[in-house]
Amino acid sequence: MSKGTVVLAYSGGLDTSCILVWLKEEGYDVITYLANIGQEEDFDAAKKKAESLGAKKVFIEDLRAEFVEEFIWPSVQANAVYEDRYLLGTSVARPCIARRQIQIARQEGAQYVSHGATGKGNDQIRFELTCYALYPEVKIIAPWRIPEFYNRFVGRKDLMEYAEKHGIPVPVTPKAPWSMDANLMHISYESGILENPKSHAPADLYLMTKSPEDAPNSPDVLEIEFKKGVPIKVTHVKEGKSKDTPLDIFSYLNEIGGRHGVGRIDIVENRFIGMKSRGIYETPGGTILYHAHLDIETFTMDREVRRIKQGLGVKFAEMLYNGFWYSPECEFVRHCIDKSQESVEGKVQLSVFKGQVYILGRESPKSLYNEELVSMDVQGDYDPCDASGFIKINAVRLREHHRLQGEHRSKH
Amino acid sequence: MSKGTVVLAYSGGLDTSCILVWLKEEGYDVITYLANIGQEEDFDAAKKKAESLGAKKVFIEDLRAEFVEEFIWPSVQANAVYEDRYLLGTSVARPCIARRQIQIARQEGAQYVSHGATGKGNDQIRFELTCYALYPEVKIIAPWRIPEFYNRFVGRKDLMEYAEKHGIPVPVTPKAPWSMDANLMHISYESGILENPKSHAPADLYLMTKSPEDAPNSPDVLEIEFKKGVPIKVTHVKEGKSKDTPLDIFSYLNEIGGRHGVGRIDIVENRFIGMKSRGIYETPGGTILYHAHLDIETFTMDREVRRIKQGLGVKFAEMLYNGFWYSPECEFVRHCIDKSQESVEGKVQLSVFKGQVYILGRESPKSLYNEELVSMDVQGDYDPCDASGFIKINAVRLREHHRLQGEHRSKH
Amino acid sequence: MSKGTVVLAYSGGLDTSCILVWLKEEGYDVITYLANIGQEEDFDAAKKKAESLGAKKVFIEDLRAEFVEEFIWPSVQANAVYEDRYLLGTSVARPCIARRQIQIARQEGAQYVSHGATGKGNDQIRFELTCYALYPEVKIIAPWRIPEFYNRFVGRKDLMEYAEKHGIPVPVTPKAPWSMDANLMHISYESGILENPKSHAPADLYLMTKSPEDAPNSPDVLEIEFKKGVPIKVTHVKEGKSKDTPLDIFSYLNEIGGRHGVGRIDIVENRFIGMKSRGIYETPGGTILYHAHLDIETFTMDREVRRIKQGLGVKFAEMLYNGFWYSPECEFVRHCIDKSQESVEGKVQLSVFKGQVYILGRESPKSLYNEELVSMDVQGDYDPCDASGFIKINAVRLREHHRLQGEHRSKH
Amino acid sequence: MSKGTVVLAYSGGLDTSCILVWLKEEGYDVITYLANIGQEEDFDAAKKKAESLGAKKVFIEDLRAEFVEEFIWPSVQANAVYEDRYLLGTSVARPCIARRQIQIARQEGAQYVSHGATGKGNDQIRFELTCYALYPEVKIIAPWRIPEFYNRFVGRKDLMEYAEKHGIPVPVTPKAPWSMDANLMHISYESGILENPKSHAPADLYLMTKSPEDAPNSPDVLEIEFKKGVPIKVTHVKEGKSKDTPLDIFSYLNEIGGRHGVGRIDIVENRFIGMKSRGIYETPGGTILYHAHLDIETFTMDREVRRIKQGLGVKFAEMLYNGFWYSPECEFVRHCIDKSQESVEGKVQLSVFKGQVYILGRESPKSLYNEELVSMDVQGDYDPCDASGFIKINAVRLREHHRLQGEHRSKH
Repeated sequence: MSKGTVVLAYSGGLDTSCILVWLKEEGYDVITYLANIGQEEDFDAAKKKAESLGAKKVFIEDLRAEFVEEFIWPSVQANAVYEDRYLLGTSVARPCIARRQIQIARQEGAQYVSHGATGKGNDQIRFELTCYALYPEVKIIAPWRIPEFYNRFVGRKDLMEYAEKHGIPVPVTPKAPWSMDANLMHISYESGILENPKSHAPADLYLMTKSPEDAPNSPDVLEIEFKKGVPIKVTHVKEGKSKDTPLDIFSYLNEIGGRHGVGRIDIVENRFIGMKSRGIYETPGGTILYHAHLDIETFTMDREVRRIKQGLGVKFAEMLYNGFWYSPECEFVRHCIDKSQESVEGKVQLSVFKGQVYILGRESPKSLYNEELVSMDVQGDYDPCDASGFIKINAVRLREHHRLQGEHRSKH
Repeated sequence: MSKGTVVLAYSGGLDTSCILVWLKEEGYDVITYLANIGQEEDFDAAKKKAESLGAKKVFIEDLRAEFVEEFIWPSVQANAVYEDRYLLGTSVARPCIARRQIQIARQEGAQYVSHGATGKGNDQIRFELTCYALYPEVKIIAPWRIPEFYNRFVGRKDLMEYAEKHGIPVPVTPKAPWSMDANLMHISYESGILENPKSHAPADLYLMTKSPEDAPNSPDVLEIEFKKGVPIKVTHVKEGKSKDTPLDIFSYLNEIGGRHGVGRIDIVENRFIGMKSRGIYETPGGTILYHAHLDIETFTMDREVRRIKQGLGVKFAEMLYNGFWYSPECEFVRHCIDKSQESVEGKVQLSVFKGQVYILGRESPKSLYNEELVSMDVQGDYDPCDASGFIKINAVRLREHHRLQGEHRSKH
Repeated sequence: MSKGTVVLAYSGGLDTSCILVWLKEEGYDVITYLANIGQEEDFDAAKKKAESLGAKKVFIEDLRAEFVEEFIWPSVQANAVYEDRYLLGTSVARPCIARRQIQIARQEGAQYVSHGATGKGNDQIRFELTCYALYPEVKIIAPWRIPEFYNRFVGRKDLMEYAEKHGIPVPVTPKAPWSMDANLMHISYESGILENPKSHAPADLYLMTKSPEDAPNSPDVLEIEFKKGVPIKVTHVKEGKSKDTPLDIFSYLNEIGGRHGVGRIDIVENRFIGMKSRGIYETPGGTILYHAHLDIETFTMDREVRRIKQGLGVKFAEMLYNGFWYSPECEFVRHCIDKSQESVEGKVQLSVFKGQVYILGRESPKSLYNEELVSMDVQGDYDPCDASGFIKINAVRLREHHRLQGEHRSKH
Repeated sequence: MSKGTVVLAYSGGLDTSCILVWLKEEGYDVITYLANIGQEEDFDAAKKKAESLGAKKVFIEDLRAEFVEEFIWPSVQANAVYEDRYLLGTSVARPCIARRQIQIARQEGAQYVSHGATGKGNDQIRFELTCYALYPEVKIIAPWRIPEFYNRFVGRKDLMEYAEKHGIPVPVTPKAPWSMDANLMHISYESGILENPKSHAPADLYLMTKSPEDAPNSPDVLEIEFKKGVPIKVTHVKEGKSKDTPLDIFSYLNEIGGRHGVGRIDIVENRFIGMKSRGIYETPGGTILYHAHLDIETFTMDREVRRIKQGLGVKFAEMLYNGFWYSPECEFVRHCIDKSQESVEGKVQLSVFKGQVYILGRESPKSLYNEELVSMDVQGDYDPCDASGFIKINAVRLREHHRLQGEHRSKH
């Protein structure tokens, strides 16, 4: 008799294929679920593989459009960056993937979900917090945290042997000496030879972006139009080509960014679990959008609103990184950030060239930029004498502080 | 009889030359003061000019070393960035310049200081807050905020006429259709034709950096060594060349960064005075250092310390931008940031190429990175089962929230 | 010929009566405006006085209900406290008063507004920022900042003489040796003999609250019901009496709080203008509400939402204190705080006694409190083993930090 | 053969006595350790009891002085309050207790430590994070999280039976229907009948403070003198009595505060573990100090330093509550806060009466209060005209915002 039904997040690779078979061995009915979030993958082959390994049911779900609209767009609005550098391409995909997994579990009456994430990483947390948040009674099977599993499969060799024994097709090409995670937003590379933080990443690592050295010798100039803080249109200025659905816009930015080698970073970051890890990321379209959004936002948003929103964006990035997309606080912050974007509207022109994004100019019907007010040549509605009072009053505290400290400071 | 002595921050240009003469006309004794903070300038010529215009005394002060050590270095430690983009090259020079001006004023017994900053900008505030903080009784003469002055000199033409009348040498080359401010850290460009935020900056604007399009086709690889959060050595990996004094290090980074077109930005920013302005900046060495410091800091600093320090850095950048370097709060924050840098030590390798800085690797005797702990291949001192409890406890709140909201969320 | 029309915020007192006459002398038509925001005042007498002094028109406006609903309620939602102590009773009245003044100015076609606030205080800023925000073209006449005025009226004696000369009724009772400001929310006392921060406030200063020493010897127990973070009903538990409109609720809380001497504080605070000042405040109803709201909010709001909201509340209090109620950032923050209050609902029981408010208990249909989960006696849906993993993972960073520091810490 | 040595945090009560015996049963050598942090306790009896139950060694440690100086004082400097109300009396004791436990474990060569904290609370985390931070290799035995233990001892009856069987003296007085934790700083009460958040606390619950209703009918007036943010002397103004060592000062404030019923709160708080719990606390001396320190701090600290320090204090309180006293971030924050206290010096007079603390006045040689500057009667070194410019410049943003929004706002 079955122990119950598990919905397994299945990638088609060696690990999750072994998990599939192992779960069956353990007495579960297994439904596999593979999300298409823009990674390169032979989805048909994966489907057939899962079926041949005994999956009771196989779900292949194209989540690309909702991934862009419901997950990437809010991150763009937030200017979400983790620890000043990482654009969160993996983090933002996790709640999207897990949400559908939970929907399938509920719909199929499964009490269990399972995944192949390791026990040291962030992804286990991101998956599982989403699961618990959306389906509090769910039971999670994380084989890489179950001693019987991880003690049995200590290295890749053990998985290979198990695969051969159970008729699981074994990969013919040797595994790259690092692991990677790909989706529409980015590819991340980590572990293996990358674990030494000093050693340089190999030049042939990158799949999504060209090397800046090999990138075209002339820039592409784009115009991105925003409304409520999200792009609604991207136009190639010279070619006149344009895109206007979220998925098309993002894909096109990936294409242009990728061609010019935009968005590569090599960082050490702090995992939620408390350890530092080294990661290499390429986020071509996301990097372009980050720069463009930052520009139009500063152009249209009041300074002090921006300051508060900036703080909320930092918090949002932490929540996202740590797996709290579906949490009361993240919902609250998304609401606030969304509110801040009401007037973030207009067009940004930028050039993409040799790994870099250059903002060239911007315009907006909702700009708070007042050319006359700021002009050095005309006075506008501004009396320079006011600045004297402004400065004097701002100096009150400073002068008091100095006086009470005595004169010692002036000797420095 | 003299109304008293004024120490005038003198640039040698048309504006401050006219101010010099005007101040004399108004009855003041004028001492001119010109700080060398790394800008291109014929200091001897400026000296002679000031003397010929009747300056009672002329000070030309080489502040480059202290500018780097006492002002740029703390900004590097802070990762100081204003509004996510601007590295504060002008802001950071102002307290350095004004501090010496005040020292001269005190030493020369001058009750007045004067400057040629406009009435709409940030610099007037930065200069004057420094002056008031260090010399609370000082009186400030800001001609561009005095109606008799600014109504008399409405346009450049008025200044030219006044100059001719008073024997002030008139510039022979036409003025660029924008204004600029240069120092060791950066050159900024604003106003004039740049005031239209939509129009692209002219290609020939930049003086400190090559266009990325004309930059070399192969990167330079540098190794920067940090101690207590400041660079103590930079080495050109291939050439073996190295620099190890603050001024030499920074100048060399400018040279390399400039050659590769690093550090150009075009932004709209929020002035302290409440208006938005468009500025174009090139900060070659500062940009390289920003990336390198960020990297070594994340490598050596605890995650949560970093989070708090990041918040302090944002505040520091605002204070710096707004002119509050010499304020109790900025001193406090600098102290805290400095404390956070005790273990920020090690070497970063990076490549500079076509406008971009790429971190390649890092090492440190004080790293908190634990290769064994993070490894996917070995367990290290880590029990993956602990992660289950960690996740379950983190989910307590989320599950409660969901339960109390009813099941409606799962239907999304 | 008239210089134009001024709407003068008129209190009926000596200062603004002199200002009224002086403005006329200066050639303005003067409309007086007196807001009833709950202060003790003979409004009819003030009306007659203004008319007799030549006011072209006299407005007496009862703003009490909107003051409570539109200004005090959002402050309650925010738990707004300035510098950890001050409940902002004066600050919150200013935008309410100035808003109507501007409405009158627009409706009467007046280009000017005027007020009697001093040049050293916060109120001038609060009034004027509201005016400029709502009526950007308005011109403000602040006599206490106009040299011709303040040099003419150096002391109270000068005002008295001017009053006698111009038929302005002179107060017969001697002025208290401090100044005060009263409204529905509080009375503040400052200046005069209170300017010495060491000297104790006189016992007979307070008008709104009884001395705790003279307060009843038994408590009153109230139940306050909240919905969306604002009180919708207050009930006297023993007497059964209840109130359910904003104005009635707040007035009743003032009555109860006042009777028991609740809400007296003596503080030194930091003015926006940069100086420290000493203020004494009594805020009976506001203090009760502060405690009650804090309690129901913590009971119903998620921990992390609360943390973010707490930060927003601190910012809100600063904006409010500094006069930025009508600013983009304050509108943004109010929106966010309002959003956070959606589930802040339920009843708080509290006792009011001898100057203190004691929370006794609370209940809510939207509580996130789970009695079974937290119980020491039953397990609930909670596995204590999870806590081990939670702690171990939280310790990862701490152990790393210790190891890398060497063992020196254990010797402490 | 022994499994090794455990240092058990032993209270002398039923639970930890059973744990002692159970650990022996399980094959460990047990050293008991009982910290005197100011709770009422018969330490001799506890010692004898532990010895009679087979403890290999018994440590009774008087930590009161270091508890005040090294743990309470930094919390006073920080104005540490958790969730706006809780003064952290339990939290602050935990690292103090656990630090000595670890010192004993190291000194005695014990690889294990154990405690009787429950699996749902905060204390387990506070104890264990301290242990792991100071002794990374330590192994922790938390019986209430070990299924064999907690399934064996489901209720108090099981413990009683076990006690009788093993010759453990059984308490003769019935247990109070709640649990409490006492130390020098406070007593906390929770669970049992208090778990219902609506029900009022029984009047006879409190042990450290008199009921305000029964408190004296006249206040006691104290003067507290601070240096570097910590009290160095307290004087009873009328009686002339004074105390000047940390332990004496704090004990005396407890005595006075206790007599007047100061510091009682009834709150619902958010545990680190993610659930809400109801707690009742009485913190007499700590409450007096909180008010006094707040007052002297605001009097002597620059406004903007205070603002930053306030934010750090909120973070400090969270760390403290969550058990991160010994963490890099908490050490960093303590350092920063300590720095901020350099000038927090002076005397505060306050009155304690019927559950409330009233600040009466303050003085300081380092005050930033400038009586002349703030005076309404003299001008001081202040030009009121400056305020006009200050306000106008602050209004620039607001006016721009309004203009660009159109005139719709004025209609509100």
